[in-house]
This record gives sequence, structure tokens and C-alpha cells, in this order.
Amino acid sequence: MPLSFTDLYVRVQQFYAGQVRSLDGMLAAEFAATFAEGGVFDHAPGTTPLRGRAAITAEMRAYQERRYAADPCQRRHWFSMLQIFPDQDGTVRTEYYAVVMLTRPGVAEPVVAPSCLVRDVLEVDGDGLLVRERVVRPDYAL
Amino acid sequence: MPLSFTDLYVRVQQFYAGQVRSLDGMLAAEFAATFAEGGVFDHAPGTTPLRGRAAITAEMRAYQERRYAADPCQRRHWFSMLQIFPDQDGTVRTEYYAVVMLTRPGVAEPVVAPSCLVRDVLEVDGDGLLVRERVVRPDYAL
Amino acid sequence: MPLSFTDLYVRVQQFYAGQVRSLDGMLAAEFAATFAEGGVFDHAPGTTPLRGRAAITAEMRAYQERRYAADPCQRRHWFSMLQIFPDQDGTVRTEYYAVVMLTRPGVAEPVVAPSCLVRDVLEVDGDGLLVRERVVRPDYAL
Repeated sequence: MPLSFTDLYVRVQQFYAGQVRSLDGMLAAEFAATFAEGGVFDHAPGTTPLRGRAAITAEMRAYQERRYAADPCQRRHWFSMLQIFPDQDGTVRTEYYAVVMLTRPGVAEPVVAPSCLVRDVLEVDGDGLLVRERVVRPDYAL
Repeated sequence: MPLSFTDLYVRVQQFYAGQVRSLDGMLAAEFAATFAEGGVFDHAPGTTPLRGRAAITAEMRAYQERRYAADPCQRRHWFSMLQIFPDQDGTVRTEYYAVVMLTRPGVAEPVVAPSCLVRDVLEVDGDGLLVRERVVRPDYAL
Repeated sequence: MPLSFTDLYVRVQQFYAGQVRSLDGMLAAEFAATFAEGGVFDHAPGTTPLRGRAAITAEMRAYQERRYAADPCQRRHWFSMLQIFPDQDGTVRTEYYAVVMLTRPGVAEPVVAPSCLVRDVLEVDGDGLLVRERVVRPDYAL
């Protein structure tokens, strides 16, 4: 029996909450495992989309090294205003706003940036979900 | 059969996510169509509440012209901490926090303002919802 | 019959939305009543966790006096990226991000701080929920 709209909506919310724990914990392989095999992550305009878990893991590790090794901080990805659009083929298209709150040690006020629009295609995977495709578009680049 | 509390809660969330897409996409007529015929939008203290879709559309277009024509930016309305209170008559009272994230071209950090408390009365409309009344109160004006 | 995961998730969201209304309305006794009898509130690292409603009420009143009497403002607690983990014993472990938006009179832009990770243990109480234990950890103190 397919999931009801309501059950699917809540499953997507719980999935995203878990996914950002991996992302914000800098757990590259865990984060990549939330994508389907061969999943595509188009994380920034003007770059080649990442294809597959190995590529996602590698890029995330490189980014952490490049960006945070000399500037340690705690990132928190916040998603909001989620829409889900279940498709006939069992996939779920989603669309939501996202922002990163970046906190540096000893500084109470996080840097809030950038505001983005994100579009995913998810597939149901047993009791969970996987990202088949993600496109992130920051508002400042529009 | 009336919707369960859970189904209604999720429907409200999906409705609001769609509504802010119209608002943030500056689609005035689409946004106004999320209000009931004769719906009331009390969007700022000290102003006369807008009544009906035509008035909402006109004011939204005027505001865009006045405020954003010379200062293009991408607004994103974020709602959070939603409470729903289904009423006996089939309407749903809601209450939530709202904030606008305003991004200017080329500037990663959005301006986050203002923080508001919003109260709606919604009515079920087929598979969707319509706003019968909305009252927005920014925290800085309290 | 135990609540479904979906029903429980929505109940938790509605509960938190109501709880922050008490908190942001500075209603100390109402806020304390969202904790179980003997509930524990570990609200800041390096402090002794508060135990029981009387202690929570007293500390919240003292904090308001100390912090806001001479600097009136409207706080808004925002929670996001909620995960719920129902346990066999009927309690529910939750984890979420939290931030406070603090608005001063006449100033549209709120101060956004601090970003926190919060972990709760909730218990079902009739149609509602109660906090048995809450641990708040601000990111800047990590």
C-alpha cells in the first residue's frame, strides 16, 4: 500500500532532519549515503553536478578541508516551507527553502547565509528515503 | 468525513509552503487567490485591513512597485512554530511565527526581518485551504 | 492503541509550538507546566540542571528580571529539523535545532542567537505531552 500524503510528508521531514545531522556533523560518507546510488547533487550554480556517493563524499571532504580546517565552526542547515509532490512512479518531488546558520566558537550570534531554494527528487527506500537528485540555488546568485 | 487533526496539520503546512511561493515569487493574483472571496488581510498595524482578492492583489502590486522596483531582491517568507485549532464549524484557527529573509543580488547574507506573530482563520476548500482572515503583527511594533 | 509515528510527530510539533508561546510570553508557570512533575531542564552548560516545576518557574522568573527588566524585548524561539524517536516504554526521544529571535521595540531586525542543539525526552500525557528531560547545548559553547 502506498504511503498516504500525510505519512509521506512526515517521513520526508524526519528524513531531512536526519540528513542535516550528517551534513552538520561533517560525516561525509553518512551524508552521501542519504543519496541513491548514482544520485546527483547539483550543489552550486556554475559547477558540475556531483554524481554518485563516492563523488559526493570526496567533494564534501575537500570542501571541509578547504573551508573549515582553518576556521572551525558549527554549521546548522535549516529547511523550511516544504512542499512535497508525490509522483505516479513512486518518487516524490520536493521543494523547500534552506539557510545555513554558522556559529564560531565563543560567538553567540550565528552567521545566517545563504538563503537557498532547493528542489529534490526522492525515492522511497524501505522505511526510509533516498535523494535521487538535488538542485540547490542560492538566492544571491539569482 | 472530517480530516483528522494530523491530516489537517500537514495540509496546513503544505498550503502555507505553496502560499509563500506565490508571495515570494511576487505573483500577486496567485497569492490573492489563496484567500477566500471576501477574505481579510490585516497585514500591518495601523493600516486598514484589505478586503477581497482584488484589494489584496492591488496592494501587493503597489507595494512591489514602491518597495522593490528600485531595489530588486528575493524575499523568502519563513513560517514556524505552527499551532492549529480546528473549530466546530469546519474552520481552522492557526497561529505561527513568521520572518522574512531578504536577499540582495550578490550578497550571501540575507536581511532577516521582521519577526512577526500571525493569526489566520482558514477554511477547507475541497482538497485545499483558503485564508478567511489573516492578522500579522510584527514584534518591533508591540 | 499507541499513536502512529505520523500522529506522534505532529503532536510533538503542536506541543512545541504551544510550549514556546508560554516561553516567549514570559509565562513562567505555564512553561514549567509543560514539564513532567520532577522534570529536568538542563538549559545551559556549566549550570546545575533545574529539577521540577517550582525550580523551573523560579529560575525563569529570575532570568526575566535579571535579563529583560531593563531591556524589554520580544523573544521568539524557533525550533527546526525535528527528529522523533519513539521508545518501547512509551516515551519519545527528540532532537532538534533551536534559535532565539530577539526583537527590541522599534527595531525591525531581530537579533538571531544563539543556535542550539536540543535533546528532549517526552512522555505522552493524555492527549498531550510533557517534557521529562531537556538538554540545551548552544553551538558557540562547543
